[in-house]
Amino acid sequence: MEKRISLNGTWKFREASDNEWNDGKVPGCVQLDLLAQKKISDPFYRMDEVECHKLEEKEWVYRKEFDFDLSEEFDEIKLVFDGIDTIADIYLNGELLGTAENMFISYEFDVTDLISENDNVLEVYFHSSTKVMRTLENNSPIRLESSFETARPYIRKAQYAYGWDWGPRLAQVGLWKDVYISVVKDAVIKNPFFYTEKLQKDTAFVRINASVSSFTDLDLIAEVTVSYDGEVCGRKSVHVEYGGIDAYLKIDNPKLWYPNGIGSQPLYNINIKLLIGEDVIDELNFKSGIRVVRLIREKDSIGESFIFEINGIKVFAKGADWIPADNFLSRITKDDYYKFIRLAKDANMNMLRVWGGGIYEDEAFYDACDEMGIMVWQDFMYACAQYPDQFDWFQQMAAEEAEDVLLRLRNHPSIVLWCGNNENNTGFYSWWGNGDPKYLGNYIYKEILPQICAKYDPSRPYWVSSPYGGVDPNSESEGDRHQWNVWSGWADVKAYLADKSRFVSEFGFQSMPDWKTVLSYTKEDDRYILSPVMISHNKQIDGMERLIRYMVSELGFPKDFKSFVYLTQFNQAEAIKKGVEHWRAGKFMTAGTLYWQFNDCWPVASWSCIDYYKRKKALYYYSSRFYADVLPYIMEEGDGITIYGISDLLHDEEAHIKILCYNLDGEKISEREINAKLISNDVVKIAHYSVDELGIGYSPRIMPVDALHCTLPVERNGNLLNSIIYVKMTVGNSTYENYIVFDKFRNLNLRKPSIKCSIEGNKIILSSDVPAFGVFVETENDVDIKDNCLNMIPGEKYILECSGEPGNVEVLDLTSLISKIY
Amino acid sequence: MEKRISLNGTWKFREASDNEWNDGKVPGCVQLDLLAQKKISDPFYRMDEVECHKLEEKEWVYRKEFDFDLSEEFDEIKLVFDGIDTIADIYLNGELLGTAENMFISYEFDVTDLISENDNVLEVYFHSSTKVMRTLENNSPIRLESSFETARPYIRKAQYAYGWDWGPRLAQVGLWKDVYISVVKDAVIKNPFFYTEKLQKDTAFVRINASVSSFTDLDLIAEVTVSYDGEVCGRKSVHVEYGGIDAYLKIDNPKLWYPNGIGSQPLYNINIKLLIGEDVIDELNFKSGIRVVRLIREKDSIGESFIFEINGIKVFAKGADWIPADNFLSRITKDDYYKFIRLAKDANMNMLRVWGGGIYEDEAFYDACDEMGIMVWQDFMYACAQYPDQFDWFQQMAAEEAEDVLLRLRNHPSIVLWCGNNENNTGFYSWWGNGDPKYLGNYIYKEILPQICAKYDPSRPYWVSSPYGGVDPNSESEGDRHQWNVWSGWADVKAYLADKSRFVSEFGFQSMPDWKTVLSYTKEDDRYILSPVMISHNKQIDGMERLIRYMVSELGFPKDFKSFVYLTQFNQAEAIKKGVEHWRAGKFMTAGTLYWQFNDCWPVASWSCIDYYKRKKALYYYSSRFYADVLPYIMEEGDGITIYGISDLLHDEEAHIKILCYNLDGEKISEREINAKLISNDVVKIAHYSVDELGIGYSPRIMPVDALHCTLPVERNGNLLNSIIYVKMTVGNSTYENYIVFDKFRNLNLRKPSIKCSIEGNKIILSSDVPAFGVFVETENDVDIKDNCLNMIPGEKYILECSGEPGNVEVLDLTSLISKIY
Repeated sequence: MEKRISLNGTWKFREASDNEWNDGKVPGCVQLDLLAQKKISDPFYRMDEVECHKLEEKEWVYRKEFDFDLSEEFDEIKLVFDGIDTIADIYLNGELLGTAENMFISYEFDVTDLISENDNVLEVYFHSSTKVMRTLENNSPIRLESSFETARPYIRKAQYAYGWDWGPRLAQVGLWKDVYISVVKDAVIKNPFFYTEKLQKDTAFVRINASVSSFTDLDLIAEVTVSYDGEVCGRKSVHVEYGGIDAYLKIDNPKLWYPNGIGSQPLYNINIKLLIGEDVIDELNFKSGIRVVRLIREKDSIGESFIFEINGIKVFAKGADWIPADNFLSRITKDDYYKFIRLAKDANMNMLRVWGGGIYEDEAFYDACDEMGIMVWQDFMYACAQYPDQFDWFQQMAAEEAEDVLLRLRNHPSIVLWCGNNENNTGFYSWWGNGDPKYLGNYIYKEILPQICAKYDPSRPYWVSSPYGGVDPNSESEGDRHQWNVWSGWADVKAYLADKSRFVSEFGFQSMPDWKTVLSYTKEDDRYILSPVMISHNKQIDGMERLIRYMVSELGFPKDFKSFVYLTQFNQAEAIKKGVEHWRAGKFMTAGTLYWQFNDCWPVASWSCIDYYKRKKALYYYSSRFYADVLPYIMEEGDGITIYGISDLLHDEEAHIKILCYNLDGEKISEREINAKLISNDVVKIAHYSVDELGIGYSPRIMPVDALHCTLPVERNGNLLNSIIYVKMTVGNSTYENYIVFDKFRNLNLRKPSIKCSIEGNKIILSSDVPAFGVFVETENDVDIKDNCLNMIPGEKYILECSGEPGNVEVLDLTSLISKIY
Repeated sequence: MEKRISLNGTWKFREASDNEWNDGKVPGCVQLDLLAQKKISDPFYRMDEVECHKLEEKEWVYRKEFDFDLSEEFDEIKLVFDGIDTIADIYLNGELLGTAENMFISYEFDVTDLISENDNVLEVYFHSSTKVMRTLENNSPIRLESSFETARPYIRKAQYAYGWDWGPRLAQVGLWKDVYISVVKDAVIKNPFFYTEKLQKDTAFVRINASVSSFTDLDLIAEVTVSYDGEVCGRKSVHVEYGGIDAYLKIDNPKLWYPNGIGSQPLYNINIKLLIGEDVIDELNFKSGIRVVRLIREKDSIGESFIFEINGIKVFAKGADWIPADNFLSRITKDDYYKFIRLAKDANMNMLRVWGGGIYEDEAFYDACDEMGIMVWQDFMYACAQYPDQFDWFQQMAAEEAEDVLLRLRNHPSIVLWCGNNENNTGFYSWWGNGDPKYLGNYIYKEILPQICAKYDPSRPYWVSSPYGGVDPNSESEGDRHQWNVWSGWADVKAYLADKSRFVSEFGFQSMPDWKTVLSYTKEDDRYILSPVMISHNKQIDGMERLIRYMVSELGFPKDFKSFVYLTQFNQAEAIKKGVEHWRAGKFMTAGTLYWQFNDCWPVASWSCIDYYKRKKALYYYSSRFYADVLPYIMEEGDGITIYGISDLLHDEEAHIKILCYNLDGEKISEREINAKLISNDVVKIAHYSVDELGIGYSPRIMPVDALHCTLPVERNGNLLNSIIYVKMTVGNSTYENYIVFDKFRNLNLRKPSIKCSIEGNKIILSSDVPAFGVFVETENDVDIKDNCLNMIPGEKYILECSGEPGNVEVLDLTSLISKIY
């Protein structure tokens, strides 16, 4: 039996060279404590981040005095830290317990003989991680390549802490997770593991094991019970042998765990009781799901497939990449995690990739993913650098970390893949000219991690890196791929349409955050596109230039700074839509799209779909449309358009399709209706219409077009620049919409819409006289709006639900955002 | 003796399927003839280029009727075409003389037996080159990679005719050079060649050879005379043997030909008389220079040098790349060529590269280069494509062409290098994945051309391609290099500063053409940045986007469209200045900079320094400064600035240096004066001053800076953003100026200058109260201004000479061009 006594709460802290103690919070960090005491200003405001840079070289002491009740019987007392960030010496009552070196793992110290009844003094002395890593770097015989900070590979601290191209340099210092005393009596069950060995017809073969730490010589029996919704589905008693238990169970008619959109997420309760005779000496409960995951990698005419299969069903992965949700991690609450994952689910996502430059996430993150069917691609925390794994000590730390992570996370059915690192293998190949080296991190990814994963978790595939597969790890024909030609490589958005990736685990497009968020980190003076504050809140070098480059390419110039904010959001949404629709149309040649990135760690112009304050950007609203289980897709082909029906549904469905063709001045040109069958989990071609058939006439217009590496004027059909085709696809009670226009928005004959807007309680009701694009509703109150950034069909009514009364509402659209003064 | 009877002038022409004949001009082309008759509109206006695209599939007949005097004695009569563009059948009096297939070579046909006294009818039937090349392409067993037009490699026609990223698709059709009848009696001297075998102390060993086409069996003697300025320097008589002559001469105290800036350009007259006994039966005069050229390619610690050495002197090549000066070549007059080369000379250039996608230039071009000391890097006309040299017929055509070109051009001392092609070898390696193939054009560059060059011209080096050298033909450590990371690769301008090329034969940065030129090709409605016409007059895909990207990066947003035009020019000038100064400072590690591009072939936004109408852009004015023989160079280093003196002078010189340090509000902070010795043809470090020493104080200012792959706010010295340092370096009677500011212009505290402007006759006199940048004078009258785009020192007087009365003058500067509204 284990009893835990929390040491969380108010501690004292001081700078090491200072004498004055101040109140600090655990879990927490120095920066938040200083902020609470107004000793630093908010690093998210303007460029105040710079003040925190000066803290990096300092050392800090955290101190807790406590009494402890020694009257109860015990066999062992341990002091446990769930997370120490990063290099720290731990003293209890003046004795050095040990040194922490890895923020990703928990530390426990046996204090049975040290702890006293009264006046215990626990002190944690934090060294400067920056100084330590620089020293390690300076003493290293080889120079490691890396981005953002050259010394960061030497310490096991969240790598984004030293700045990334979307995050500030804010290296938190402190006890960022729980601290408690663990009192053990007799024996305790540890590291339980429940997993599905196989599914066979109506039966799941599951296995449960755990280790037992025992202080008794008596025979121990473990009783394992698997139940669902209070009902027992399986039970078995086993002897504790070799320090652990191992139980096989058959679950009949199991309720299988499925990703969001495919099925539900039943979670079983697993109970393990440790018995001496009839006496329960320890008991443990946890939840898990029954499901099997397979990564289908089969050679084909192109290369090799890369398809996630859950319970025998191929699943097109729809999602995004997840980064830490704050620079000060203890600020993120369980509620925050559930909100984030709810947002992912509501956007019809089914996968998030926990990116390797951040952290192994909080339990709450994975719990929420388990409950809402968000599959997790879990990277190990190595990113965009070479790592010093030629050193034994680094290898050992990597192994220890992997073990800790696997034991902690392996019961989450949501996790479907362990992945060695982020971009280090493509780095070897394409950035640093290393080929496929033995060390530089590769020993970890290719030797240590696969071995540890095989040992502690036979239930999931391991993948060396993201991206990986093929001779070039960023190959288009094998494995996963990061498509950064667009945006980072400055290529036009249409490059997505030529991309034949097997699985796009990163691709992205920046936008400004929500206007209210922009206001939050700026003074009046900062509110112009190229202000120092605006540039500093876009951490990518030439990020603002790219925002402008793509905006002028697709839309034109903005009317003012605020218009710029909205235009970049619309542009991002349209760009990612283009990519996702293209790749979904090629399913399962391509088997997934995870766009970079889901969230932010501070208020910033970035690739995210929701900003730091969880305010939704246009991309978020678009995601729920282009990630819907049914997607009508319109392609310009030959003399007109072809309509495809993309279905992630698991059975064939009848669909009713309506095609509406409008002039941009609001006149309806034509309408067509057809029925078609959507094929289960597949793509069907539904119909082709020539432009002529749809009533779009021909009027010659000379326009510059992209020819073979140069621009040529060409006679085109001017009427196309004045037309839009909407498609509505109805399946059962759901209607899915899409549209096509025939050139970049900057070239279209857009008409200024007259948009009627009324407010009824929490609802905003809109309608437009002409096709309207990028219709943003901006509310006076900071409410959440269920939908926004609309592309409105003339005459149709749009009802936007808000989380509260919106207050005054401003309605913006492309024509009101774009300027023609240049 | 040869007599030539010109057939130039008015011909008749018609579309082949038409019956009506119209007047046409020879030399000329169909397009100019149609234009003259107002049957097409000006393809340079708006997007009217498109009308000419429709002409491509048509076929045309040109016809000339003439009488011919057969009364004089002759041995042979030939019909000669100096240039036929391209695929044409030639008929005289109804007989097919032959078919022309290569616009680059001359064609001659023996018409001795066909020509009559009266009513000769000469007809040239032009096939559609487009149809012919497409047929060849379709019939080819292999598909060739190329840019702009896939079929163009199949025909020997100027490759830029089918569109380039600075040129329209305007494929001229016609007799673009002289047509004449050649009547030969007795014998005629052909293909003379004069070159310097070696220089030894005060003696030049020269060699003169020629072929003799003879109709007599009598003994022929050739008398070769070399004279300078009317004075005979050497004479020799030789027998005509083996169909030719070969004479060696020693010239004492020769006057050597040097590139511009290094020395003068003495040209010798070479006279060859053909004698039978005392009778002169033919005589020929031509000019050439005495000089030896060597390409120093020596292994060093970095790789291999690439240095042009003229008469034993290393010459840093300063220049640009030359493209055809028009899409309709016959429009370019001899006067135009002399004006162009004069412009190059006045900009202190000493080299032009005749780029391989254009034409082997007109005699007048090389004559002007000979006379003004502009060295010519001469490409063979293969560019950005694979070529079908697996075919014997193509090999043969390539050989024939090379021979024709060498025989025509080899007497020009200005030509210093034959180069196999433009970018095809880097194409093999980097674009198309061919490695170093046997064919695809490589057989021409590596087998045919070097053999023919060795045979017909032992006096010059041959180089396989531009770029070439190293395993990667675009290597930084060997050979020449095209640096396109900046601009085409979207990299920031500062990437130039990291480039260690051995010889930069291409790098460039676009700008808009002169404002008057913009007006010339637009209607009022077209005058906004992203208008279809503006995009069509920037042939690079995403060219306008790049202009904007770099403008906002360095300067910010423009006030209006016209401001955009000027800002792009200033930005271009500053960018190329940055590159050239960096590379000149590293001479002779780097031994040349040829920026892309000198001129334009139509009015367009491009990389040129002078536009189609020979209007100078800001880059032109800058060139004369950064290409001056003495260049003071200021680098920000450590805690301040270091001043270097770069000298192309051939002897050491005393220099007086003045350093002027100003606040941007016009206050002089400090002044320093020193003397230093400039080392001949070398770079010296003159002085280092800390910012502090120069009186620039410190005030903290947080600014975003480019860190390791991300942007970080950093505390910098705010005073630097308010400071400028000017350097004036006086050597003899010349003063050379330069300046440094300490951030991008968009970040500086620029003050609006009050610029005094007065006009005195053809002079514009300016002075400013504060440091003023990008000061453009725009004149009402279309006059040439000797200097413009000034960076003005407060209180100094600037006198701009105009070629005529300027009329009203508008003065613009950065502060009046940049908008802060966003």
